[in-house]
Amino acid sequence: MTIALSADSHSPSGNSPNHAALTAKAGWRGLIETYRPYLPVTDQTPVVTLHEGNTPLIPAPAIAAQIGRQVTVLVKYDGLNPTGSFKDRGMTMAISKAKEAGAKAVICASTGNTSAAAAAYARRGGMRAFVLIPEGYVALGKLAQALLYGAEVMAIKGNFDQALTIVREMSEHYPVTLVNSVNPYRLEGQKTAAFEIVDALGDAPDWLCIPVGNAGNITAYWMGFCQYHQEQRCTKLPQMMGFQAAGAAPFITGQPVAHPETLATAIRIGNPANWERAIAVQHASQGKFTAVTDTEILDAYRLLAAEEGIFCEPASAASVAGLLKVKEFIPSGATVVCVLTGNGLKDPDTAIKHSNNQLHQGIAPEMNAVAQAMGF
Amino acid sequence: MTIALSADSHSPSGNSPNHAALTAKAGWRGLIETYRPYLPVTDQTPVVTLHEGNTPLIPAPAIAAQIGRQVTVLVKYDGLNPTGSFKDRGMTMAISKAKEAGAKAVICASTGNTSAAAAAYARRGGMRAFVLIPEGYVALGKLAQALLYGAEVMAIKGNFDQALTIVREMSEHYPVTLVNSVNPYRLEGQKTAAFEIVDALGDAPDWLCIPVGNAGNITAYWMGFCQYHQEQRCTKLPQMMGFQAAGAAPFITGQPVAHPETLATAIRIGNPANWERAIAVQHASQGKFTAVTDTEILDAYRLLAAEEGIFCEPASAASVAGLLKVKEFIPSGATVVCVLTGNGLKDPDTAIKHSNNQLHQGIAPEMNAVAQAMGF
Repeated sequence: MTIALSADSHSPSGNSPNHAALTAKAGWRGLIETYRPYLPVTDQTPVVTLHEGNTPLIPAPAIAAQIGRQVTVLVKYDGLNPTGSFKDRGMTMAISKAKEAGAKAVICASTGNTSAAAAAYARRGGMRAFVLIPEGYVALGKLAQALLYGAEVMAIKGNFDQALTIVREMSEHYPVTLVNSVNPYRLEGQKTAAFEIVDALGDAPDWLCIPVGNAGNITAYWMGFCQYHQEQRCTKLPQMMGFQAAGAAPFITGQPVAHPETLATAIRIGNPANWERAIAVQHASQGKFTAVTDTEILDAYRLLAAEEGIFCEPASAASVAGLLKVKEFIPSGATVVCVLTGNGLKDPDTAIKHSNNQLHQGIAPEMNAVAQAMGF
Repeated sequence: MTIALSADSHSPSGNSPNHAALTAKAGWRGLIETYRPYLPVTDQTPVVTLHEGNTPLIPAPAIAAQIGRQVTVLVKYDGLNPTGSFKDRGMTMAISKAKEAGAKAVICASTGNTSAAAAAYARRGGMRAFVLIPEGYVALGKLAQALLYGAEVMAIKGNFDQALTIVREMSEHYPVTLVNSVNPYRLEGQKTAAFEIVDALGDAPDWLCIPVGNAGNITAYWMGFCQYHQEQRCTKLPQMMGFQAAGAAPFITGQPVAHPETLATAIRIGNPANWERAIAVQHASQGKFTAVTDTEILDAYRLLAAEEGIFCEPASAASVAGLLKVKEFIPSGATVVCVLTGNGLKDPDTAIKHSNNQLHQGIAPEMNAVAQAMGF
């Protein structure tokens, strides 16, 4: 059977649900099909998709209450992409274009999220996936994913920056396509998150708060907002507020960090690949880079879970930690979107280690014992 | 600012993207708002939502190829709900109705996924969440979630069935609202997955393959298909094909299983709460219950990841394992939907333990060493 784009052939009886929503939901077939006119694809491009994108933009009233002054805060929960992070947005583009070019194998260096996305899309596209990781610094869930997706994972005795150097060399000397964020198609896919935010709000937000590691995502969001602005789909551009972990904050110190350290592993990067572009974004958007400590990141991480019901990975919480850190500078009545780049399930160890909540164990299996443990 | 339901106020220039899709995506505000006319809510119901639902229905060509005969296979990837499982669908309803009734605390027994959903929604709704779990049998990711969301988690020295008995008693004797699947609002929310499938396909599928544990979900899906059929939104009803783990298969053996055993923890249930209803669904839909072994479940789990790029939890793979087990009975040209109930990130230990793929460790950080490890 054919999968219809519209479900409107039946007339509803009685009360009528939101038919626009139903129809559109039915039609969601991933970023490339939805935003095709804005992306460098043609009818010849084989679309490798897991129906990524279309992630929720969720109001965050508890965070807004900490700011006050009629500020609206929403989080773009990109951890609900198919492999659990925003990386899927770029990977559907990079892998589709690699397949179009005839590639049989792809390679990337990754602290985790990129490896999972590369593996999933490469395998779905019928390609081999080689992944280089820095040994010892990758969260459990991420490694589990890459392996199960069928990636050939290699752990080097070095850091992320060394891994990135090697995969660049590999792609020059061997028949493997590089799918790190230096691959230009990655940023093309990632920019669609900005499209989705504008589509949801009806305009661009006043501030976009975003974690910054390799600085690809802040660059991509800005590309997206600018493109939509040129197309008159939004009337303004946001100030881009980038947040780095204090132990891996080259944009604040002004120079590469030789030994970056933070528990937010996804942004533990000392020498961002998109350095110049990120600085250009900051200037063009009248934005700012700010460092947040691991303590501030963990506080935001717990706040998001226990007050908003949203479980993100530690690096993602940097956007909320940063927002709260600079909240005095937010214009009254502004709309702020915080980007949550990854799913908290990627890193269960951090959740267990840094939860303030207690597990009551060894309770006898009968009501009175349970009631007593509950404090009744 | 007001969050607009429509983004159509701007006329696009140049090529035009799918505006129906853009608008509708913008409008997705969770199950209750989307399917309000089909749900037992009123204007007085405070909607507690994380924008659950709207999960991808992804073609599975590799699985279809193992069947042949022009059969179309799609997976409903409900692991992309906000807390990582289909339980969010029921919990937005159960918590909203509990809040409407003035509840200050909720309680549930859970092998894992329900606890995460109950905790997230209860906390978002400003309530306390008590969770009873059977000690020692809950996957890491799930426990991490409940704790971080702020649940008060109690592990009893007993199994799931004992925990369920205790929470039922607790809700009768203490001021806590029961949000297990015996809560009728849970199934009302869960039925919306059937709505989404019909909306996406334009009609009901011929077969719906679904993992069966407590048997709430198969009951809820059937409710949804029947309701849509009555409203003439689909022209047919699917055959409901339920799959239990061989070590926890009361519907196949015909009697409760005292000590259920399977690595698919989410369906390790010996005495399903919805026993009679599930049997009624089987008869009414001309469906069938079939047992699948843990080996078959793991094979399907790996197949989904390495061939389709989809990472689900082991219990979810029972639907695909079952489909492949009974594939000779599928009518030629049929459309089959397999329900994937939970995200694979819920259970990274199983992924690492049962991946067939190798991690190459200790490689020197230079290109020639990496190329050699890759086999070049």
